[in-house]
Amino acid sequence: MNAPSELPLQASTNAFPLDRWYVAGFSWELKDKPVGRTLLSRPMVLFRTPDGAVGALEDRCCHRELPLSCGTLEKDGLRCGYHGLLFNSAGHCIEIPGQERIPAKAKVRSYPLRERDQILWLWVGSTPDSQPNCAPPAYPVHSDPRYKFDGDVYHYDAPYQLIHDNLLDLSHLGYVHLKTIGGNAKIHMNAQLKVEQEDEVVRVIRWMPESDPPPTYSAAWPFKGKIDRWQEVEFKLSHIQVWTGAMDQGTGALDDPQREGFHMRGFHGVTPETETTAHYFWTIATNPHPDRDDVTQLVVDQTAATFEEDKIVIEAQYRNQLRFGPRPMIDIHVDVGPNRARRVIAGILKRQASAENMSESV
Amino acid sequence: MNAPSELPLQASTNAFPLDRWYVAGFSWELKDKPVGRTLLSRPMVLFRTPDGAVGALEDRCCHRELPLSCGTLEKDGLRCGYHGLLFNSAGHCIEIPGQERIPAKAKVRSYPLRERDQILWLWVGSTPDSQPNCAPPAYPVHSDPRYKFDGDVYHYDAPYQLIHDNLLDLSHLGYVHLKTIGGNAKIHMNAQLKVEQEDEVVRVIRWMPESDPPPTYSAAWPFKGKIDRWQEVEFKLSHIQVWTGAMDQGTGALDDPQREGFHMRGFHGVTPETETTAHYFWTIATNPHPDRDDVTQLVVDQTAATFEEDKIVIEAQYRNQLRFGPRPMIDIHVDVGPNRARRVIAGILKRQASAENMSESV
Amino acid sequence: MNAPSELPLQASTNAFPLDRWYVAGFSWELKDKPVGRTLLSRPMVLFRTPDGAVGALEDRCCHRELPLSCGTLEKDGLRCGYHGLLFNSAGHCIEIPGQERIPAKAKVRSYPLRERDQILWLWVGSTPDSQPNCAPPAYPVHSDPRYKFDGDVYHYDAPYQLIHDNLLDLSHLGYVHLKTIGGNAKIHMNAQLKVEQEDEVVRVIRWMPESDPPPTYSAAWPFKGKIDRWQEVEFKLSHIQVWTGAMDQGTGALDDPQREGFHMRGFHGVTPETETTAHYFWTIATNPHPDRDDVTQLVVDQTAATFEEDKIVIEAQYRNQLRFGPRPMIDIHVDVGPNRARRVIAGILKRQASAENMSESV
Repeated sequence: MNAPSELPLQASTNAFPLDRWYVAGFSWELKDKPVGRTLLSRPMVLFRTPDGAVGALEDRCCHRELPLSCGTLEKDGLRCGYHGLLFNSAGHCIEIPGQERIPAKAKVRSYPLRERDQILWLWVGSTPDSQPNCAPPAYPVHSDPRYKFDGDVYHYDAPYQLIHDNLLDLSHLGYVHLKTIGGNAKIHMNAQLKVEQEDEVVRVIRWMPESDPPPTYSAAWPFKGKIDRWQEVEFKLSHIQVWTGAMDQGTGALDDPQREGFHMRGFHGVTPETETTAHYFWTIATNPHPDRDDVTQLVVDQTAATFEEDKIVIEAQYRNQLRFGPRPMIDIHVDVGPNRARRVIAGILKRQASAENMSESV
Repeated sequence: MNAPSELPLQASTNAFPLDRWYVAGFSWELKDKPVGRTLLSRPMVLFRTPDGAVGALEDRCCHRELPLSCGTLEKDGLRCGYHGLLFNSAGHCIEIPGQERIPAKAKVRSYPLRERDQILWLWVGSTPDSQPNCAPPAYPVHSDPRYKFDGDVYHYDAPYQLIHDNLLDLSHLGYVHLKTIGGNAKIHMNAQLKVEQEDEVVRVIRWMPESDPPPTYSAAWPFKGKIDRWQEVEFKLSHIQVWTGAMDQGTGALDDPQREGFHMRGFHGVTPETETTAHYFWTIATNPHPDRDDVTQLVVDQTAATFEEDKIVIEAQYRNQLRFGPRPMIDIHVDVGPNRARRVIAGILKRQASAENMSESV
Repeated sequence: MNAPSELPLQASTNAFPLDRWYVAGFSWELKDKPVGRTLLSRPMVLFRTPDGAVGALEDRCCHRELPLSCGTLEKDGLRCGYHGLLFNSAGHCIEIPGQERIPAKAKVRSYPLRERDQILWLWVGSTPDSQPNCAPPAYPVHSDPRYKFDGDVYHYDAPYQLIHDNLLDLSHLGYVHLKTIGGNAKIHMNAQLKVEQEDEVVRVIRWMPESDPPPTYSAAWPFKGKIDRWQEVEFKLSHIQVWTGAMDQGTGALDDPQREGFHMRGFHGVTPETETTAHYFWTIATNPHPDRDDVTQLVVDQTAATFEEDKIVIEAQYRNQLRFGPRPMIDIHVDVGPNRARRVIAGILKRQASAENMSESV
């Protein structure tokens, strides 16, 4: 992979934590056509060959620069849609139609791509030959028989950390999501809040005992009246889990992992597309209603509606930040979790920059 | 209002005459939802609380920067749509849900907004604490029982002074508005023209005796044949009045304010949105046809069509100026009025800049 | 033409070979309305007056800068749609409504425009007074009774030389145009290829004997089975001819200009709009099917579909070049023709730049 790797990466590429796993998509997205997607400012083509293997290449034919995502899939790889050069998953050109010799430079950069629990995990290295030093994260909920799930991919015209902020501060439910999972705004704002941190993991736990079930909850579970409600958010750079739920008031301990009732388990892969845009890969899993089959789809639909409400707010927030330019903000009580996660990423970037400086001065 | 006011205004904000009243909208625009509108490069939210009071705030929550125009109205003010901070019309945060203490910096800039004659007048000061030194302009036509009126708000992708040029030179009627108020082009170009100036007020008066009534006039009034037609345009920085009309030929003096016949009284609030875009707030009032009820709406509709013709021309003109870049233009006889108005504004800006320099050197 | 010509041309205008004929459009485009079109970064208005004469002027009224393409056509020229100034085809203002005197500066730049064989040819000079030193190219196919033709104008969001590349390398037919003129990809890639050059003319000739007729060919001509197929591409800066066809296998010599069978004669006027966009003026002429009248339209329709496929590929290629920035490409066997044409243009631009330097140092 000489040709491309000798070239400087785009200016923005050190803006993100590198040598990490990021969510690149879901298994079900890779069918009979390649998928073009920019991840961490790197335009890529993701694909699955007919033998089932997945691959990720730089989305640019080394001949005349057509995106390889305009090409077609074959047994041995991905064929460019302009002059037919064929590339395997390692990025090597293995056929030039009408020409015997394949030049040594006929290669494109490849990226490690793994499937696990129906999630596509991409390793983005700080150097072209960086290889994964660990397995990608597991997410066993996707194969847990107690749950059914569905999900989608949203594109955000906003930087990825604004989505982190939103997920780590669920107090906004009372104002943004009145019609679905919100319920009484005061309840959300006055919830018992606990923020914990272990290395790069931030956890925000909120308990709302004796609250009224919000519309989605009432539809999804046969609650008898008031509920004890919990929200457990776990931030990792690779993804955020938002596991929430509720049980009839007084029927269990809010911190018991085996507690009864209605459970929603949200997976949120928030991956930068560029420094100012993001991909949002989400699934929501719930335990089915004891009597009704149709409720799971309802919960998924209302969750999708909820996430669209978030997208509207976050994109409006970002556009406003752009038009006002840098300005001080004031913090309130709910910002503890989001601010921790921002410090985690700032710390990673700082260590990364100083490591790079050291390697340069060697 | 410490936090925001300590910050520099956007670079472009001294491009406009300040410490002045500008039209920000019409009374009927403020109903049960806040209205986001950028005026003089300042993004604002305009609103009316349920008690009827109007307010104008900087359109940015001081917490996480969502536009306040995404929020909701309550008795005491405007509540942010993300985390529920509540602001009163003075820009003070008066509630942070879930938190007792309200930080001193939890404020946004407010702007004086007044209603008069169904027009919303905004005072844009050169400093955050600038307060109006006079009442906003009156426009009694809106409550004159002899007239009926209607209007609308147009957005222009063109600088506001190009709209001034257009309104102060009605000779374009013969080419741009053939189908409505134009009529014979030569008549317009050869009209008797008088241009007067008093301080910052420019008046352009055109008489077209013995002319044929244009289509809108014929529909709106029972003229017998040829007409004596007048056009009186009064430019002020805050707004332009275009009062026009006609009477049967020879039935009165063209300079008699009490003259008979058909009257159209146009109000034109031309307010910069940015240096390259503008808001155009217009109303048209006419005296009703003696026999027909349906004519007023016809005049309003044709006026709207006329103003859309102007918008097409002016936006095309501006796009052309952009693609050709600065180039000399030639002047012709009809440019006297527009050029006077441009000199008025240039003079205001020059005095404003030198006043600012003096205050800086103190 | 003092005023405009004293001004510097736009920065980009020396990016193109000058003092040359370029295709500006087709005769049938100029009807009762002027046509605004930017050619070689010069915004122009093209028009035909009622007497049949064609003209090309800078698309900017010298009074208040409205595009003249917003105006109307009259016997003596083009009248501006704002204040009615009338310009003749030489760019002189010949009437200012309401004003006797016409200032000497009331002129706009004019460009030589000629019609030949239903093609509008524009001379773009290196100086405002540059005049054609030769007749525009002939294209007699448009009046050859053996052919019927039709064509269209496409706009490309890509630089014009990417279209040259595409037309000079027909090997892409096997991958981009499978459904129409493509046929078997390997046949295209293994075609006998001959590239010739005479001064600024590049010819690429490809023979594909014993091949299967592609879908468009089978529909257009009563072939008996396998065909001998030829493609003759002639590049000139002004336009590219792509003359292709086929006959029943073994029924004639592939290099005999009088050979039998099905002929497609493509005219491709590729004219830069700006440095990054282009106009593509094409016609396709074919000899009619011996038995069926409806085939010509079918060939035109399928050709249009083919050119739309090219447009999709070329615009995707250019967007990808933009997002990756300058990067080395690898060449393959099919690039000989396109690379020759690029060297021709580079040579012209180099000579042009050194001639300009010499004239400056005089």
